[in-house]
Amino acid sequence: MKINGKQYRTIWPDPSDNTRILIIDQRKLPHEFIIVPLCTAEDSAKAIRDMYVRGAGLIGATAGFGMYLAAVNASPENIDAELTQAAELLDASRPTARNLRWAVERVLKTITTGQSYEEKRNTAYKTACEIADEDARFCKSIGEHGHSIIKDISSAKNGGTVNILTHCNAGWLAFVDYGSATAPIYAARDAGIDVHVWVDETRPWNQGARLTAWELQQEGINCTLITDNAGGHLMQQKMVDVVIVGTDRTTHTGDVANKIGTYLKALAAKDNNVPFYVALPSSTLDWELDHGRDIPIEERSGNEITTITGVTKGGIIETLQLTSPEIRALNHGFDVTPARLISGLITERGITPANREAIHRLFPEKAVSQKSEGHK
Amino acid sequence: MKINGKQYRTIWPDPSDNTRILIIDQRKLPHEFIIVPLCTAEDSAKAIRDMYVRGAGLIGATAGFGMYLAAVNASPENIDAELTQAAELLDASRPTARNLRWAVERVLKTITTGQSYEEKRNTAYKTACEIADEDARFCKSIGEHGHSIIKDISSAKNGGTVNILTHCNAGWLAFVDYGSATAPIYAARDAGIDVHVWVDETRPWNQGARLTAWELQQEGINCTLITDNAGGHLMQQKMVDVVIVGTDRTTHTGDVANKIGTYLKALAAKDNNVPFYVALPSSTLDWELDHGRDIPIEERSGNEITTITGVTKGGIIETLQLTSPEIRALNHGFDVTPARLISGLITERGITPANREAIHRLFPEKAVSQKSEGHK
Repeated sequence: MKINGKQYRTIWPDPSDNTRILIIDQRKLPHEFIIVPLCTAEDSAKAIRDMYVRGAGLIGATAGFGMYLAAVNASPENIDAELTQAAELLDASRPTARNLRWAVERVLKTITTGQSYEEKRNTAYKTACEIADEDARFCKSIGEHGHSIIKDISSAKNGGTVNILTHCNAGWLAFVDYGSATAPIYAARDAGIDVHVWVDETRPWNQGARLTAWELQQEGINCTLITDNAGGHLMQQKMVDVVIVGTDRTTHTGDVANKIGTYLKALAAKDNNVPFYVALPSSTLDWELDHGRDIPIEERSGNEITTITGVTKGGIIETLQLTSPEIRALNHGFDVTPARLISGLITERGITPANREAIHRLFPEKAVSQKSEGHK
Repeated sequence: MKINGKQYRTIWPDPSDNTRILIIDQRKLPHEFIIVPLCTAEDSAKAIRDMYVRGAGLIGATAGFGMYLAAVNASPENIDAELTQAAELLDASRPTARNLRWAVERVLKTITTGQSYEEKRNTAYKTACEIADEDARFCKSIGEHGHSIIKDISSAKNGGTVNILTHCNAGWLAFVDYGSATAPIYAARDAGIDVHVWVDETRPWNQGARLTAWELQQEGINCTLITDNAGGHLMQQKMVDVVIVGTDRTTHTGDVANKIGTYLKALAAKDNNVPFYVALPSSTLDWELDHGRDIPIEERSGNEITTITGVTKGGIIETLQLTSPEIRALNHGFDVTPARLISGLITERGITPANREAIHRLFPEKAVSQKSEGHK
């Protein structure tokens, strides 16, 4: 998608040296646009852990390239052991993200088919690029399927503005391109539908205020920033036509882990008969866990709540203390929205109800492998 | 209540010159503790509008003293007209707060009984002081009644910690003393019950992060700051035993306007069988409106969302831009929690179900006057 009119992905191999992977440092957005190179698996793990990159698909793609960078830096005689070590390092960098483990395992599995060091390294590169390309392609398909939801609402409103509420950033910045929750919005806009997005600021890391609002602004999409507290009131006032969010992990039974606060919006949507959709590539599906309550929920530093970073009038990036210094804060990163509150999942294969039967029907090959492996 | 171990109210006549009313500038808390004098009705209206003071009871008390200051500054021959003008000015300073109009009308009504300028001025002073004293007394009673709720939970947990979630600041800083939502917590603590408070940070003005957390800290109450997004997750995890919030206006039918985001917490409480109480002195009850949806909801500047104020490492109070500069934000101050989601109202006369019949039974004299006046 576009930044200052120029096309970007969120992650790409350095065209002049493909042993370096380039990313956008999302910690500095929207105040500074900085491209950072990753040279090792450790760089990749740090980029994920410290949130230079974030979002389901982008975490997966970064982990995939991280495995490739581990191969680049491995000693040829010890590459298998070093890649297993890198896999553990990357796996541990964020606990809730499903795409992370999925991408790491995918690279790990394919390189075992290679014989020589060169073959393994080339396979790792090819697989990491495939993961990134597939992520972009799947998000594009999510857009095409999800577009129909927005189109129907637009028709029902006789072409009036469709008001879409989203939480956190499941935009293209959270993936390799297009985004999950935003892909239907971009597709609807491209089809000439009048869309307006309510952007939850998404405390404490302000992904909505910093990333989604900026991303939509760069793409010329009409949007308004609101506090995380506001969505329920707007739904009561009939100012929201549909909610579309992303997810960091969705169980094969339809429970959705997403940025903390998503559950509250789902409750409000239910209470006000507003449809509530979750957009995800199938890489985000967890075929092992039967219950959302078993998804590990990341706990991050309380400092993310008690301090905040922004830019001064003079253009300096500064961090402020918001509370009295000794205040203790608890900072869970995600919550789980139970399937019963979800109108549908928008995937690269189409829209499905959020329940086991329907999800298994849409991804029969995954369902079969899940059955044969048993529940772990 | 206490600040640095010293007893304060939030508003009081200057002991050395009772034509000045003193308040704590809550915009600077917790970083700076500044006492500001109010000398005119305009000062009072500005203090309310610009949120030097905020919170149901304190807005009422400030409006009451504002009417007194109007009397102080009125020309003796024109006092009635000038007080009517001051009443209009004060009424318009915040639209959602019920106590505001109630206090203004109470002073306006009593001064008509005075004959001379001196008599009117003295009556205004006496009434304003009565409003403040009554607010403190009613909050103390709310504490005594609400204490029973916390005591029962403590007993059911065999003396284990009672986890109370609150939104915004309905603490003593929102009233003249004790607070509404916090009064039961202070009373329970005084009775030796082990209490812990989850403090919603309460975007965008961060009343929770800046005021409630600091207020509880000053009183030695165990508390943890959380984002507004977190409460639902904590309830799912059985980490919340009861929710107690305040209100800016409650209809005589039991619908509650409170700081935006309250409705979302009420939905989560319902979904997780967590009792949800609203604490209020009867001055917050609106005997005219039958439906919460008719309560006017204040819209404030979007800058409160796109910028934030805190303190630098060097101790300087600074304001930062959080978003890209051209981002538009919508900032409604309140939402309405329907009576069906409320376990009970904690008033100075006891705890009542949130419905018309029960509320009228508890305040029969108000119910009668409401009936005889008809609905406006």
